[in-house]
Amino acid sequence: MNAPSSTTGERLVHVPLGDRAYDILIGPGLIARAGGEIIARLTGRRVAIITDENVGPLYLAQLMDSLQTDGFEAVSLVLPPGEKTKSMDGLAAATDMILAARIERGDAVIALGGGVIGDLAGFAAGIVRRGVRFIQIPTSLLAQVDSSVGGKTGINTRHGKNLLGVFHQPDLVLADTAVLDSLSPREFRAGYAEIAKYGLIDKPYFFHWLEKNWKKVFEGGPERIEAIAISCQAKADVVVEDERETGRRALLNLGHTFGHALEAATGYDSSRLVHGEGVAIGMVLAHQFSARLNLASPDDGQRVAAHLAEVGLPTRMVDIEGGLPPTQILMEAIAQDKKVKSGKLTLILTRGIGQSFVADDVPTSEVFSFLEDMR
Amino acid sequence: MNAPSSTTGERLVHVPLGDRAYDILIGPGLIARAGGEIIARLTGRRVAIITDENVGPLYLAQLMDSLQTDGFEAVSLVLPPGEKTKSMDGLAAATDMILAARIERGDAVIALGGGVIGDLAGFAAGIVRRGVRFIQIPTSLLAQVDSSVGGKTGINTRHGKNLLGVFHQPDLVLADTAVLDSLSPREFRAGYAEIAKYGLIDKPYFFHWLEKNWKKVFEGGPERIEAIAISCQAKADVVVEDERETGRRALLNLGHTFGHALEAATGYDSSRLVHGEGVAIGMVLAHQFSARLNLASPDDGQRVAAHLAEVGLPTRMVDIEGGLPPTQILMEAIAQDKKVKSGKLTLILTRGIGQSFVADDVPTSEVFSFLEDMR
Ligand SMILES: NC(=O)c1ccc[n+]([C@@H]2O[C@H](COP(=O)([O-])OP(=O)(O)OC[C@H]3O[C@@H](n4cnc5c(N)ncnc54)[C@H](O)[C@@H]3O)[C@@H](O)[C@H]2O)c1
Ligand SMILES: NC(=O)c1ccc[n+]([C@@H]2O[C@H](COP(=O)([O-])OP(=O)(O)OC[C@H]3O[C@@H](n4cnc5c(N)ncnc54)[C@H](O)[C@@H]3O)[C@@H](O)[C@H]2O)c1
Ligand SMILES: [Zn+2]
Ligand SMILES: [Zn+2]
Repeated sequence: MNAPSSTTGERLVHVPLGDRAYDILIGPGLIARAGGEIIARLTGRRVAIITDENVGPLYLAQLMDSLQTDGFEAVSLVLPPGEKTKSMDGLAAATDMILAARIERGDAVIALGGGVIGDLAGFAAGIVRRGVRFIQIPTSLLAQVDSSVGGKTGINTRHGKNLLGVFHQPDLVLADTAVLDSLSPREFRAGYAEIAKYGLIDKPYFFHWLEKNWKKVFEGGPERIEAIAISCQAKADVVVEDERETGRRALLNLGHTFGHALEAATGYDSSRLVHGEGVAIGMVLAHQFSARLNLASPDDGQRVAAHLAEVGLPTRMVDIEGGLPPTQILMEAIAQDKKVKSGKLTLILTRGIGQSFVADDVPTSEVFSFLEDMR
Repeated sequence: MNAPSSTTGERLVHVPLGDRAYDILIGPGLIARAGGEIIARLTGRRVAIITDENVGPLYLAQLMDSLQTDGFEAVSLVLPPGEKTKSMDGLAAATDMILAARIERGDAVIALGGGVIGDLAGFAAGIVRRGVRFIQIPTSLLAQVDSSVGGKTGINTRHGKNLLGVFHQPDLVLADTAVLDSLSPREFRAGYAEIAKYGLIDKPYFFHWLEKNWKKVFEGGPERIEAIAISCQAKADVVVEDERETGRRALLNLGHTFGHALEAATGYDSSRLVHGEGVAIGMVLAHQFSARLNLASPDDGQRVAAHLAEVGLPTRMVDIEGGLPPTQILMEAIAQDKKVKSGKLTLILTRGIGQSFVADDVPTSEVFSFLEDMR
């Protein structure tokens, strides 16, 4: 990884996964020239675009134009926005449309939207004819820095989130950084929490750079491209090392065990808490818990909390509107997320900013009393 | 591959697919000791069994007993028999049951049934938590010699058969040859067509052996085990060479392009034609067409037809009850099955018994006039 530079141009992150290697292009205006980038990487000439009712009206026509100019036959499906679309019904609708469009193995499914559309369309692409080509055009910040990279796809079931899916790597990711201007500030901040996460995992200088430059990331321009490129590179590095998530990829869960428990405790009600907000609080908790275990200095936790709060993210459990259920319920949600073995739990802890590690023997009793004290 | 021997005991075929390698055990009585075989190969202790209403009443209790004796927590789902179960609804039912049973990545889904149950349960196992362990207990002859080996899974859609699915290799295949005694003679013959296919592809001595020993294969005993073992080995060899079906695996389609067209032309009505019957007619047609193109001697086609007819399989289009639609409709079904490029078609042809090859430039006009003449 390179230290942040301040070029203004487009960036390319290559994900070297052997015969499943692919490029991530990052910069403004990529949707307008998607056709040319795709045609260079695809043997087929048919594409099926899946998008949602928020993103479709804003960017679908532009994408269709570009594809048709380059000679593609393109069809599209516009689904309702939100987590509910990641369901069996959504999957049935997506696969039916892809098959009706006669997409063959060399043709592609294109996801145009946030993580919901990316996860659903990627799953559909992974199972139609046992796998057709797949292109991600992530339009939320979270999707650009996290969900569009790595090949995890899936839907939710009544038993929990993301319980059905496949690993299906995209053939190309086009992160058009200009489309983030239409994203709500709250969704932008939520995606920013995941950017900060990469610094906190193992890139202290990146976290420091974010402390100085975060406003420019929010405003757009070269710093936004830079922050997204560094994040994609960080995620790609982990994915290449551990494609099927058996080891190191677990570090990407920094802040997520606590975060998921908070999401569950608020009933996945996005008006109360969106994923990135849960992660922000979770990362602060991970630093504070590490300090409590004398693994890290309390100053680091304070510094993390200060930065995330400055950006406008919640950093404490009391920041969640409507209150939380008893700690016992939070513990049960944690046990659902991570297997508990004889009273011990795997958590991502830290020795300081940019020094996270996997701790696989954390006593649940310690976690319980910590959470009791923090609320 | 070894030449047929006449041992009486159980056979083991190993499928060396690197970290997805697995064993196929073939012999009578395997269901009764399934628990022991599975426990030796699985880290988890929970299993979810999927079966159908024909097979369940016959063998489910025995399987559950064996699993429970060996300490497994086993639950089961009994689905209606038949091709309709290979649907989105079937998939939703299967995955829901597997998740309700809290099957984790080290636990397993077990398919107890014919190819329908194997294809459905394998697909479900491939997508629950992005892949849990999977064990095949094939109970039809077709499933024992074909569908349970190779990792192809899937369901049907209104756009066609097997259009949704994943590659998901099993961790173990237990082919209990005694359960074939309860299979209807018609289904047994249909599976036998696939056994004959392996001889016709590239094992002339196996075809000769079948001509002499087929009655003993039908009756049971060491010849049945032998024929199934040779078939599994033949399929495994092809799969290992070409796991994702990009080349050589196409030879397994001998007789299938014609066969699928006949199945489509009879509306997939299994009272008129089951898959193996279509394959039997298709293999004879492939030999006759090869003779017509002066690639093979007509004697070979006659010999193939004579053997399949002796066994009780249909070998000519006129053998199909209720008649066939015009040849033009058959040609459209063929074009649906295989991509037609500028009037040329890919077909598996032969230079004689055991000498099949992929011909990728067969003029559709020749196929049309051949089919016209044969009906
Ligand atoms: N596959 C993975 O590795 C992975 C990783 C992290 C998260 N996820 C998944 O991602 C999902 C969350 O992703 P998300 O936060 O992008 O949610 P999302 O897709 O619901 O997008 C958030 C909201 O922003 C809207 N939106 C998106 N782009 C926009 C734009 N440019 N302008 C205006 N509105 C826009 C969407 O319509 C939606 O209402 C979750 O389902 C989560 O499970 C997957
Ligand atoms: N995955 C693959 O590689 C592959 C290969 C070939 C075929 N297939 C699929 O396999 C399916 C056909 O398989 P099939 O012919 O086994 O069909 P099937 O599963 O429908 O079984 C045929 C009939 O026999 C019954 N049966 C099965 N075992 C029995 C037993 N021991 N005793 C009594 N009855 C029994 C079943 O209930 C059913 O009614 C098709 O869906 C086809 O697409 C898949
Ligand atoms: Zn996250
Ligand atoms: Zn077949």
